[in-house]
Amino acid sequence: MSDHKNILFIMCDQLRFDYLSCYGHKTLPTPNIDKLAERGVLFQNCYVQSPSCGPSRMSTYTGRYVSSHGSTWNFVPLRVGERTMGDYLRQSGIKTAIIGKTHMIADKEGMELLGIDPGSKRGVEISQCGFEPYERDDGVHPDAVIEGKPKPRYFSYLNERGYKADNPWHTYANSTQKTGSDDINSGWYLEHTNDPARVADADSETPYLTRRAMEFIAQNMDRPWCLHLSYIKPHWPYVAPAPYNDMYGINDLAPVKQHPSELQDAHPIYREFMKHPESQNFAQDDVREKVIPVYMGLVKQIDDQMGVLFGFLEDHDLFENTMIVFCSDHGDYLGDHYLGDKELFHDCSSKIPLIIYDPRPGASEQYGKTESALTESIDLLPTFLDFFDIEIPEHIIEGRSLSSILHGEALPVWREYAVSEFDYSFKKALRDNLSLEVKECKSYMLRSEQWKYIFHDKFRPQLYNLITDPDEYFDLGNDERYKSICDTFAEELFRWLRYRKTRVTMKDEVIKSWTELEKQLGIFIGLWSEKEEIKKT
Amino acid sequence: MSDHKNILFIMCDQLRFDYLSCYGHKTLPTPNIDKLAERGVLFQNCYVQSPSCGPSRMSTYTGRYVSSHGSTWNFVPLRVGERTMGDYLRQSGIKTAIIGKTHMIADKEGMELLGIDPGSKRGVEISQCGFEPYERDDGVHPDAVIEGKPKPRYFSYLNERGYKADNPWHTYANSTQKTGSDDINSGWYLEHTNDPARVADADSETPYLTRRAMEFIAQNMDRPWCLHLSYIKPHWPYVAPAPYNDMYGINDLAPVKQHPSELQDAHPIYREFMKHPESQNFAQDDVREKVIPVYMGLVKQIDDQMGVLFGFLEDHDLFENTMIVFCSDHGDYLGDHYLGDKELFHDCSSKIPLIIYDPRPGASEQYGKTESALTESIDLLPTFLDFFDIEIPEHIIEGRSLSSILHGEALPVWREYAVSEFDYSFKKALRDNLSLEVKECKSYMLRSEQWKYIFHDKFRPQLYNLITDPDEYFDLGNDERYKSICDTFAEELFRWLRYRKTRVTMKDEVIKSWTELEKQLGIFIGLWSEKEEIKKT
Repeated sequence: MSDHKNILFIMCDQLRFDYLSCYGHKTLPTPNIDKLAERGVLFQNCYVQSPSCGPSRMSTYTGRYVSSHGSTWNFVPLRVGERTMGDYLRQSGIKTAIIGKTHMIADKEGMELLGIDPGSKRGVEISQCGFEPYERDDGVHPDAVIEGKPKPRYFSYLNERGYKADNPWHTYANSTQKTGSDDINSGWYLEHTNDPARVADADSETPYLTRRAMEFIAQNMDRPWCLHLSYIKPHWPYVAPAPYNDMYGINDLAPVKQHPSELQDAHPIYREFMKHPESQNFAQDDVREKVIPVYMGLVKQIDDQMGVLFGFLEDHDLFENTMIVFCSDHGDYLGDHYLGDKELFHDCSSKIPLIIYDPRPGASEQYGKTESALTESIDLLPTFLDFFDIEIPEHIIEGRSLSSILHGEALPVWREYAVSEFDYSFKKALRDNLSLEVKECKSYMLRSEQWKYIFHDKFRPQLYNLITDPDEYFDLGNDERYKSICDTFAEELFRWLRYRKTRVTMKDEVIKSWTELEKQLGIFIGLWSEKEEIKKT
Repeated sequence: MSDHKNILFIMCDQLRFDYLSCYGHKTLPTPNIDKLAERGVLFQNCYVQSPSCGPSRMSTYTGRYVSSHGSTWNFVPLRVGERTMGDYLRQSGIKTAIIGKTHMIADKEGMELLGIDPGSKRGVEISQCGFEPYERDDGVHPDAVIEGKPKPRYFSYLNERGYKADNPWHTYANSTQKTGSDDINSGWYLEHTNDPARVADADSETPYLTRRAMEFIAQNMDRPWCLHLSYIKPHWPYVAPAPYNDMYGINDLAPVKQHPSELQDAHPIYREFMKHPESQNFAQDDVREKVIPVYMGLVKQIDDQMGVLFGFLEDHDLFENTMIVFCSDHGDYLGDHYLGDKELFHDCSSKIPLIIYDPRPGASEQYGKTESALTESIDLLPTFLDFFDIEIPEHIIEGRSLSSILHGEALPVWREYAVSEFDYSFKKALRDNLSLEVKECKSYMLRSEQWKYIFHDKFRPQLYNLITDPDEYFDLGNDERYKSICDTFAEELFRWLRYRKTRVTMKDEVIKSWTELEKQLGIFIGLWSEKEEIKKT
């Protein structure tokens, strides 16, 4: 082991915070992840800045809210010039690579305007959100998406392993075998989702990416690195290889979080989301009973792979100098609240698991503790900069380093409320049904210790009392008795919007030291004379 | 004359809207500018997006509000990637040059991050706000500012003309002669401001820049161009060459706009600005009586030069294909409201003159008309794009093309309110006196037909009834009877903030056409089966 420091930044895709035994799941033991929590801090209230892959990740990678970086939904490119984790770390000589998913879409038009060749070294860095693309693989590869593009390395790996097809990702890793036939069932459809994937466990995505991570680490023992190991699962297609596909059954399901009151007088936006096919399907018990065991299997597979990976780190003494972060990019409704997928703000969608193991002296006293402070995924980047002793540009980054929590320093209030945003303008049916313009399709969540307040443009807010109603069944946003609470939150959101960091080219410190600078420069505005600043009357 | 089109975009610096005879000045005849108004449209209510040089100009050049482009005050660089007038026009093959001031500060850190050499062609374009620097001259050149930097061309011009000095801008063009002595009086100080500048009229800044403009035009007769002729005056130092220095006297002064009520219970921010030296000086009649005649002379000199320039255009038939825009970047208090300089939102500071001559067929019926609609300086860029038949990127640009007004098309409401913003965080005394953090130092003006509402973080708003109180003497922001009006404006500002255009990498049209695209791509979220989208219960 050398004296430099590393960060292993593990992210799962669509992993609900409460589908790990250390977060309370009763029938899904995740001993390896639990063990990481025992030697780190488990954050109980970490929220993503948007409950959707793309914007959530762009916030995590830039340390900025969605309103600030502007990449509001999955296919919106991150504008050139938004600084990312990779940019900050690379400048300090830390090798920063991605294995797996970022959901980054390059701003080709912006690059063209600035004369940056997307194929140049800098162009590739910009296109890859600052990460070196050791193995970029966003994990969703339908034929039409990959047509004409270079295929991910995983494709040739599968081909070499004997899974012969133009698109082995779909044909093998994310499909199941039709019973008594050579035909296959596409994993896109829930109907056959609990049959085994057509690949062996070892050849499926999670173990493959884990091995790639160990390769990267082995190759970089002699230098500081930050590896973003970004798993594709348990994100849909919900397909798992044997034995994970039928490791769990109906009896293992956590009770569904549905309450008839949710169907009565539902908020118009919520009601529209309940109409989506994924919601209509997941609202049904037999769909949940078919799919959730597979989802659990995919989580179990990740935990098993964490065992492999952490063992590898132990063998190489890497726990001595490597910060290990385990988290997700958002959750999954799985039928709770009569919804499927994600994108609204209930905890199962907007809250993520976050476990951080910090190898630094001073952190060990906190090992095994849980932290209830309201944290945000944008806190990770400043935490990483802090870990590497890199100055945090406070005029750009909107998150807050977690170092003080990791080191047990007393803090009065960490954060009054966590914020998450969602841009649903891409949902045509919703836009049409509610007669909304694109710019009006924005929601904002403010989650304080007691309340979850959701602001909607053009509609009344939603409000949940998380102390009396932790399951978020009873929307008080239409109740006159809570109007003043809603108004106070609206004021807070108004303030929050005013404080977004758009002045990214000048530090507050420069402004504070500005006094007299004009005069030092010889710029004198409206002075009377050399001797007399103000004319004597 | 050829069949292409041009734009001559003339901007003065710190020219008050009401210091032109076509805008009602009684004793300052500006016949040449008036004549332009007779053959164009005079906009009575055009507001700048910040009453300060830098942020106002960055808004004009990007077509975006200050909150969106982030260059909140004079010395804050415009972030790399913010598209400017020059960027849009250059891409369409239009030669776009600057003669005079832009106040652009290059984002060197941003360029470095993107691997852009500031000395490269693209680097220079980015550093010059997209304009080709035919003659960049920001017009304020104290010794300490120019030290070690390449000197503006105007310096060598003056040297060649016999004005020998290291800094002839200060020593000659912006200083006056001490009576009975070889010593000079610096034009920075108001005391001797009405003595003549130490250069001949022809060698002073305004005629020099005018000649440079004619040179540019003569060199580019055979191609479309957009020339930003950006005068430095009547901005301080308030020094004019003979005969303009004493063309006007005390009897020519417009009545000062001061009312004792303004001193009683003044808003805390306003009160702080009244403490500034320029305010303390300009609040005094004898200072006003000394300086304003010089200010008027500088305006008169501009008008005379407009005569020269417009004559040149006539001689070359350029009125046939050239849009001519005359405006300013903000006003000047000149003692009104007990204030000097600019930076607050009274009309004399935040409103500008705007005259547009449009040579296109269809515009002639509007010639000589005045337009009272609430316009903003960010409307210019989209107007220019429209003029050149370039598509306006509505997801980026926040202004609105004035073409429909120029062509007399009926419109229900142009704009509910004009918005202007100001960041006063650079004022240390104010920050300290009022115990404000940097992020709290923001004000926003919303100006509707009847009201001017000013929102201040941490303080009560200001409110003026422009119908009963056009001189803005009576601040109603503290009057309970107007609370509901203020609350409504606060709601509007809250909405305005939510609608800022930060999603600059994807057009609304792409979002609108997104429907089904995921399915076309082969991405199926939560469908039951190939045949049955939703499982039948």
